[in-house]
Amino acid sequence: MNIVILAAGMGKRMRSALPKVLHPLAGKPLLSHVIATARSLAPGKLIVVVGHGADQVRTAVAGDGIVFADQTQQLGTGHAVQQAAAQLDDDVPTLVLYGDVPLTRADTLRDLLAQAGSDKLGVLTVEMVDPTGYGRIERDVAGNVVRIVEQKDANEAQRGIREINTGIIVAPTRRLKGWLSGLKNQNAQGEYYLTDVVECAVADGVPVVTAQPAHEWEPTGVNSKAQLSELERVYQRNAAYALLDAGVTLADANRFDVRGEIVAGTDVSIDVNCVFEGKVTLGNGVSIGPNCVIRDTTIADGTRIEAFSHLDGAVVGAQAHVGPYARLRPGADLADDVHIGNFVEVKNATLARGSKANHLAYVGDSTVGARVNIGAGTITCNYDGANKHRTVIEDDVFIGSDTQLVAPVRVRRGTTIAAGTTVWKDTPEDALVLNDKTQVAKAGYVRPRKQK
Amino acid sequence: MNIVILAAGMGKRMRSALPKVLHPLAGKPLLSHVIATARSLAPGKLIVVVGHGADQVRTAVAGDGIVFADQTQQLGTGHAVQQAAAQLDDDVPTLVLYGDVPLTRADTLRDLLAQAGSDKLGVLTVEMVDPTGYGRIERDVAGNVVRIVEQKDANEAQRGIREINTGIIVAPTRRLKGWLSGLKNQNAQGEYYLTDVVECAVADGVPVVTAQPAHEWEPTGVNSKAQLSELERVYQRNAAYALLDAGVTLADANRFDVRGEIVAGTDVSIDVNCVFEGKVTLGNGVSIGPNCVIRDTTIADGTRIEAFSHLDGAVVGAQAHVGPYARLRPGADLADDVHIGNFVEVKNATLARGSKANHLAYVGDSTVGARVNIGAGTITCNYDGANKHRTVIEDDVFIGSDTQLVAPVRVRRGTTIAAGTTVWKDTPEDALVLNDKTQVAKAGYVRPRKQK
Amino acid sequence: MNIVILAAGMGKRMRSALPKVLHPLAGKPLLSHVIATARSLAPGKLIVVVGHGADQVRTAVAGDGIVFADQTQQLGTGHAVQQAAAQLDDDVPTLVLYGDVPLTRADTLRDLLAQAGSDKLGVLTVEMVDPTGYGRIERDVAGNVVRIVEQKDANEAQRGIREINTGIIVAPTRRLKGWLSGLKNQNAQGEYYLTDVVECAVADGVPVVTAQPAHEWEPTGVNSKAQLSELERVYQRNAAYALLDAGVTLADANRFDVRGEIVAGTDVSIDVNCVFEGKVTLGNGVSIGPNCVIRDTTIADGTRIEAFSHLDGAVVGAQAHVGPYARLRPGADLADDVHIGNFVEVKNATLARGSKANHLAYVGDSTVGARVNIGAGTITCNYDGANKHRTVIEDDVFIGSDTQLVAPVRVRRGTTIAAGTTVWKDTPEDALVLNDKTQVAKAGYVRPRKQK
Repeated sequence: MNIVILAAGMGKRMRSALPKVLHPLAGKPLLSHVIATARSLAPGKLIVVVGHGADQVRTAVAGDGIVFADQTQQLGTGHAVQQAAAQLDDDVPTLVLYGDVPLTRADTLRDLLAQAGSDKLGVLTVEMVDPTGYGRIERDVAGNVVRIVEQKDANEAQRGIREINTGIIVAPTRRLKGWLSGLKNQNAQGEYYLTDVVECAVADGVPVVTAQPAHEWEPTGVNSKAQLSELERVYQRNAAYALLDAGVTLADANRFDVRGEIVAGTDVSIDVNCVFEGKVTLGNGVSIGPNCVIRDTTIADGTRIEAFSHLDGAVVGAQAHVGPYARLRPGADLADDVHIGNFVEVKNATLARGSKANHLAYVGDSTVGARVNIGAGTITCNYDGANKHRTVIEDDVFIGSDTQLVAPVRVRRGTTIAAGTTVWKDTPEDALVLNDKTQVAKAGYVRPRKQK
Repeated sequence: MNIVILAAGMGKRMRSALPKVLHPLAGKPLLSHVIATARSLAPGKLIVVVGHGADQVRTAVAGDGIVFADQTQQLGTGHAVQQAAAQLDDDVPTLVLYGDVPLTRADTLRDLLAQAGSDKLGVLTVEMVDPTGYGRIERDVAGNVVRIVEQKDANEAQRGIREINTGIIVAPTRRLKGWLSGLKNQNAQGEYYLTDVVECAVADGVPVVTAQPAHEWEPTGVNSKAQLSELERVYQRNAAYALLDAGVTLADANRFDVRGEIVAGTDVSIDVNCVFEGKVTLGNGVSIGPNCVIRDTTIADGTRIEAFSHLDGAVVGAQAHVGPYARLRPGADLADDVHIGNFVEVKNATLARGSKANHLAYVGDSTVGARVNIGAGTITCNYDGANKHRTVIEDDVFIGSDTQLVAPVRVRRGTTIAAGTTVWKDTPEDALVLNDKTQVAKAGYVRPRKQK
Repeated sequence: MNIVILAAGMGKRMRSALPKVLHPLAGKPLLSHVIATARSLAPGKLIVVVGHGADQVRTAVAGDGIVFADQTQQLGTGHAVQQAAAQLDDDVPTLVLYGDVPLTRADTLRDLLAQAGSDKLGVLTVEMVDPTGYGRIERDVAGNVVRIVEQKDANEAQRGIREINTGIIVAPTRRLKGWLSGLKNQNAQGEYYLTDVVECAVADGVPVVTAQPAHEWEPTGVNSKAQLSELERVYQRNAAYALLDAGVTLADANRFDVRGEIVAGTDVSIDVNCVFEGKVTLGNGVSIGPNCVIRDTTIADGTRIEAFSHLDGAVVGAQAHVGPYARLRPGADLADDVHIGNFVEVKNATLARGSKANHLAYVGDSTVGARVNIGAGTITCNYDGANKHRTVIEDDVFIGSDTQLVAPVRVRRGTTIAAGTTVWKDTPEDALVLNDKTQVAKAGYVRPRKQK
């Protein structure tokens, strides 16, 4: 099978500098959704017709097996498919998809392909409650498709038809090429319409068959930000229900966003208003509190992520406790039983089993051993204004509150650091480390008064 | 009256290790909702039939007056009720409820009980738009219930019946015991169905009466996470409207979650996407900003809680100002006019009237007097690695920024602590306390350059 | 044209101390929405009839051209309009609006005014799916309005009428005055109903014309918090679609709140659950992450605001990067390329191009030059307990982590401050500034053990 994806349109109603097919749905360009569906059908040829913003589109989606065809002038859908004609394998049928119709399911297309076989023209149609504006599928008394009647050409009876053309077709390729080369643009827009091949097929005695998607939203296209927003919700609701069906507990299927992939174990529960991006893996019994943002992160069994946490590029062990208000940045690698608390940022740092940083701290570019307690307000001073340096904290260290660890520095096993200490030299094992300080009290101090 | 609650099912479609009836709805096991409703009817006997995960279920819901009956094999609803038969008081009717049907209102059950009286069989039925899959209530021309026809046994006419059996029944107990002992399991599942008692009643000339719930969702059961998620939304929407009816302003009834109880005064306003857990009391004129999480907390009149605040186990006085991004943990006890600002954590600490901790601070295990100003970055160092110690800050103290208070320590009345001071000894009253420091400037310093 | 807005009602069902018309919708009193719509029609006279909480209402909405009329006793809508009669210009028609009906569109009113012209009585009516409780519009066979029939007086046929009276009318003013003075209060409530002028007009042979709003929600009034909450959602959904139509990308039109005005450039994208208040200006290509709260703020082209950020009264330059968890308070003025990171608060402070405060810091009352790096945990100590002082940080300064800058203080160009330094004196240029410290290690320290 050949698949041609039309992706040359500008999308003027999007009111955007970005080519329409690159607008993201669930974090991924519309066109990428269509390409992913197309690939799942294992086509022999996969041709993307580009036009508006062609270079940008090519760069965004280029990948194995994609061939691009240029439609430098946008002269209609029939013209667009014709630009791909030279690349089509004549011996297998050609399926035409649209780069701005992202949610057609592969099963629906398989059904259409099965109906059409190798020698029939297949048209994906859908029953709409309100078909106004769409091309109606007119059938004879035997139920055979005889033509597609556009809204403006439809008489009263035809307007009553609720079965409409989605534009998605599959055709025998040699036939299709013939039909395309005979298309006329004698219409209001002066465009060559792919739809017209249906009449060509009827004229040539090629049977026209149809298939219908299971859901009305499948053939919905995106022409405006409003439609994009609505399809985003369809996508997210489907994603939510897929997780629910897999046994994940979601507090609210309408307040759940996944822009990528979630792999979840059993007894995972996700509270309201969380956003997942990239690849997120959640082990058995993981619970995610409300209002978390989690991206490209792996979380092991039994770990709790509390409200308002923001995890990106992190690995979190089992039975760990993160948040609320914890920020894990790329390279945060927490072992089992690690606790990261409120207003704590961890970046490019490993914390071994049982270590804790529970309050207001920045742990960056660090290697932290097991059973370490990092006090409130501790800062790893990893940046000297030009380069990043590493802090090493060995097992069983206790870092007092408000300590600065000026990297590169090593805090050796068992060290206790007093509160408010600046540490710039490596410490010996099992020592108490501090800056010599006096505590001075000046009696009778009079505090400043409010200036008038 | 006896009430039997069936709670023995596994709930395979929940895809969970937790017994189905223990899955939480609004933060509380499904079964606990049913028990609460049952209790509100003041039954003489309250029997919960347990089976799958019996021990876990018993532990989760055990309480005054609950008797458990074991159904070691799950042989159908009729069999389940039979396990409770020995415990039923013959002289009063028996109401059968389901541990996975959490939202039936007590008023609905009262109506059913009133219809049935002491000598009739009462069946709770509901009209469904799409009754597919449910047992239809077949009535004779006089309107009397004659049988319940299961989907698979229904003819065309019967399938058109939209009144369906909810499974909730009330029956004269002696009669019920007789019927139960005569149930057969000659059906596809090989189970004993409670539903069959309707035909027994008709055969015995016992009148069968019905009652209907006010809302279609009342008899809805939970068999999957999708259904659980949908009932969660029904519950929360009801909870939101109950508060709206009581005069609370909710910015969005669809973004509001309460898992417990809210007691609200007049002119309370709650912004979007807040989550309430446990018992929360909000005084007159309290306003809660967007995206707050509030658990087991009491907030007095006129206090504002700003966005992204997380309160748990706290008491907040009147005219206080908390957040945004304030975290109050258990034991946080704020008097009137206290201000807690952004990135501040308060735990097990009392702050008297008019005190403030407005920026990036950790106040734990502390007693703070009135009119105290706790500067940005202040940390109470309450933990020595093994034990927690207390910080006492008396009235009218000014704690400079980035101060560490190494507990146990007492900062006496009127003390001013200079910024960046480590305080490990008690301070005298009205003194200026600081660590002796020099400020050294080394001229001509050349900062590190970027390493290649 | 005269416009009379009725705003004297108590709104008992609101269960609030606040007069009903002052309850906020989208952050603004209901009455203010009506006044804004009225003003857009450029009336010669704009009269607001006040009663319950008259002083409070007057204070809340007083402004150019508004005249108040007092209705000290609430004796019905007819009586209310009568209180304004003395102020009406007889030569132009009078439009009557309601302070608790906030969302009627100006276009709808213009249509009504056009229908009525100068000599007809115009009534705004609406078709309702369920008209129960509303006054039905009865027409004769020719389609002329003959009367308004209240629910309680309606016969079976009249109850079937789905066109109902919204209460909004426009009338020739001399006629109106006559009708009002003849109104009777012989009804159950003992009130004078404005509705009765329709029968007066029919009796006097004055044609009664109608207009209908485009949307069913337009004439909806607020009598309860539930209705207020529902209209809030209508308003917000309209606001969301207006932005979508303008080309803004919204991840979820149902999780979007604007209480004021958003001015957005092209290719602006706004993630889920954001709240906008006051006047917010978003430049081209601005992206706002999930769960942000933004008030009275201007953000220039290409800037990213990350999740959980809270901006109020801020100005943010182009290509800047703010958040997650950044708090910008009034007077935060960030130049291009500035970075403000997690758990950082900026207040009344200017940061010049390319400066950064990426982690846990408080920058208040400060002037920060270009290319400055403010280390994690840095605090500007701007408050001495009575007065606020200013911190000046010149270009190319590097502030080490956990530094306290005790204002008033000036850190001169090129200075490097060591981590953990308290700075209370101005620094020279290009120096390394630090407090002299020793790092002491006491060997063999035994950490406290857990107390029993």
